[in-house]
Amino acid sequence: MTDALNAGLFGRLRDGSGVLWRDYVGHPFVRGLADGSLPAAAFRRYLTQDYLFLVHFVRAYALAGYKSTRLDDLTDAASGMAALLAEMRLHVAYCAEWGLDEAAMVAEPEAVETVAYTRFVFERGTAGDLLDLHAVLAPCIMGYAEIGTAAAPHAVAGNPYAAWIEAYAGAEYQGAAGTAAAALDRIGARSGAAGRMPALQAEFDMAVRLETAFWDMGWRAGS
Amino acid sequence: MTDALNAGLFGRLRDGSGVLWRDYVGHPFVRGLADGSLPAAAFRRYLTQDYLFLVHFVRAYALAGYKSTRLDDLTDAASGMAALLAEMRLHVAYCAEWGLDEAAMVAEPEAVETVAYTRFVFERGTAGDLLDLHAVLAPCIMGYAEIGTAAAPHAVAGNPYAAWIEAYAGAEYQGAAGTAAAALDRIGARSGAAGRMPALQAEFDMAVRLETAFWDMGWRAGS
Amino acid sequence: MTDALNAGLFGRLRDGSGVLWRDYVGHPFVRGLADGSLPAAAFRRYLTQDYLFLVHFVRAYALAGYKSTRLDDLTDAASGMAALLAEMRLHVAYCAEWGLDEAAMVAEPEAVETVAYTRFVFERGTAGDLLDLHAVLAPCIMGYAEIGTAAAPHAVAGNPYAAWIEAYAGAEYQGAAGTAAAALDRIGARSGAAGRMPALQAEFDMAVRLETAFWDMGWRAGS
Amino acid sequence: MTDALNAGLFGRLRDGSGVLWRDYVGHPFVRGLADGSLPAAAFRRYLTQDYLFLVHFVRAYALAGYKSTRLDDLTDAASGMAALLAEMRLHVAYCAEWGLDEAAMVAEPEAVETVAYTRFVFERGTAGDLLDLHAVLAPCIMGYAEIGTAAAPHAVAGNPYAAWIEAYAGAEYQGAAGTAAAALDRIGARSGAAGRMPALQAEFDMAVRLETAFWDMGWRAGS
Repeated sequence: MTDALNAGLFGRLRDGSGVLWRDYVGHPFVRGLADGSLPAAAFRRYLTQDYLFLVHFVRAYALAGYKSTRLDDLTDAASGMAALLAEMRLHVAYCAEWGLDEAAMVAEPEAVETVAYTRFVFERGTAGDLLDLHAVLAPCIMGYAEIGTAAAPHAVAGNPYAAWIEAYAGAEYQGAAGTAAAALDRIGARSGAAGRMPALQAEFDMAVRLETAFWDMGWRAGS
Repeated sequence: MTDALNAGLFGRLRDGSGVLWRDYVGHPFVRGLADGSLPAAAFRRYLTQDYLFLVHFVRAYALAGYKSTRLDDLTDAASGMAALLAEMRLHVAYCAEWGLDEAAMVAEPEAVETVAYTRFVFERGTAGDLLDLHAVLAPCIMGYAEIGTAAAPHAVAGNPYAAWIEAYAGAEYQGAAGTAAAALDRIGARSGAAGRMPALQAEFDMAVRLETAFWDMGWRAGS
Repeated sequence: MTDALNAGLFGRLRDGSGVLWRDYVGHPFVRGLADGSLPAAAFRRYLTQDYLFLVHFVRAYALAGYKSTRLDDLTDAASGMAALLAEMRLHVAYCAEWGLDEAAMVAEPEAVETVAYTRFVFERGTAGDLLDLHAVLAPCIMGYAEIGTAAAPHAVAGNPYAAWIEAYAGAEYQGAAGTAAAALDRIGARSGAAGRMPALQAEFDMAVRLETAFWDMGWRAGS
Repeated sequence: MTDALNAGLFGRLRDGSGVLWRDYVGHPFVRGLADGSLPAAAFRRYLTQDYLFLVHFVRAYALAGYKSTRLDDLTDAASGMAALLAEMRLHVAYCAEWGLDEAAMVAEPEAVETVAYTRFVFERGTAGDLLDLHAVLAPCIMGYAEIGTAAAPHAVAGNPYAAWIEAYAGAEYQGAAGTAAAALDRIGARSGAAGRMPALQAEFDMAVRLETAFWDMGWRAGS
């Protein structure tokens, strides 16, 4: 997937973010997932906050729907919402395997890092246009695809995080990330992306930093 | 349906709008639909603008999704979007029976009246909260239910508008309107509706006036 | 002013709107202002709706403030709000000369045409970015400057609309329009305007059409 | 000031937030400001992020302007923006005394905590109504007034933070906080505040937590 993505706007933004991107996809939390050494407490903290995060992620797709003026974009937003709501059901089932029940997750206060990334997405999504919104969602969607692909060889018996890795390395998620990258290119092309790279890069970079902070938040719970 | 709706917030707002409501649901355009006397040119104008309107109506549900902080409201918004997108397919098929093809409708400029109502909904939906948004969608959703019920006895063989009447008088649409009324009550209850009636009534009234203007726009095309 | 404006993004959009622009700046209402033949009833209708319009225009600058990420744009938005609020005081004084008092204007329902243009501006301003917002404000700001300049030779003794013409033909308003055109160019340059002309032209054209509809609304009150 | 504030909506929300409020106004950072023991590095970190914060705070007032439908609220928003922009000039001058120049502050990335509070304000301000927006601004505006009043006796010669304390304990800031509390009451009264306390309390509490996190961020820079 990475090769195809590199050809487009996402690849350009990812390369432009340089060390910020490497800090994100190579975070100790991610390495701990890959080699199975991540403390369970860190993963549980992450899972709970990721549940809270997902609610806002669905809202971000809804916001994309409002911002759409073309029926295809609007249909994509509706499909994205439906897919994420379905994913939340899977997430809840997976969390239960880790001893986390939905009511407890709902009752958990959002971490500062969860607030920061999700509301930053909304701010760019309300103050900017549809391209700005997609630009700050991209580090999440495509970053997890890259992380999943890189960790895939480690999704072996005995790794407690194998199922998580397989979910993001799998064809379904990889396909969704590819679709998102194509949408970013399509929206970028008609939104003058080439002429607004400094602003796009700045907001993409901030989103990447906030994703890294999200790993930090989980990581701290394991120490 | 009318009786049940009257018990809640919608009924209170409808009654509060008085003659504005009666002008809307008893518009000559509506009477012409019921007795079959509406000029076809008026109906075609209406159908085309209604198609353009529906795109924005899906966006309004998307905006409701963004504004939702509870998973049930968010799920409702996603379902509403999916249902409306499906309805648009039916609408397109129905328009084809009247000699209107989708490409031609897309190419038609929005009438001032179409712009006025749809963007007023968005303004209340972005400047106000979820209750404000639902309050200005209600005249459309519930008004069509009332119009459909009232016209149902006229949906007879020979009335060229029988299929239109049946669609809105039918159980599916009536059920959807009832669900929307229940949602308005539920959101109203936790959003302090009782303490903000003057503002809610004012925006509801404006929405009713803009619905009437929408009929005016169709009506003029028949003269 | 016109020559300088023609060199930039506004000039390109204005030329692109072609006959729509000519219909707007050459509307019978405008010609009636210039030659003094406009019925007073038409002008009073216009003045009242323009008062209601101005409240939303201040809000549009506020929205521009929210959408600004640079201190200079934010400061411009604050200055614009303060200037418009001051202009509203002048407008109220001027309306009083025509026998319209503020309380009566506040109590007047907004015309469909007033709703349409103002809420369209808000929709583009919330669904699009800062450039989209400025693109749909431009027809109003710069159009009035062009109308004022064209009518200036007619601001003679005996023309009841001389003061109105002088206000828009005057150095202060012309300067403000020039500043707005420069801001559009500056924001356009960093927002990739060159790569998004079809969308910008489409929303500019709609704004022009809605300005024309606003004149229509006043004009009808004189017949 | 505290007594007057306690009588209204702000007092009710403050009391409702309980220990969260006490953690905020009694944070070690705040105690260090009062007794002069706060490490200068912590203060400088705070000053820089507070500068970045203020830009968004002006934007929040702009958003309040967009959300206003009454001329008095709109005028308040414009005045608030102008006052904050003036305050930023003072802030820059004050920062210079601490060896921080504006260009360096602009170049500093926003801390996660700065992003979290400011974007949370925007989210509540775009997803909720004007009351929601004011409810999440209140902890900042009124909290600083309470902190200033409590620390005022410590604004003595030799305390390096005396000027900071005096600014927030002074009549001008206290008056502004009182005005903001009155506005919250006024907007609350017509927005049904009494019927929506759980939601208002929840968002107020989150804002308080994010203010505490902002102090944490400064505090860590001193250790």
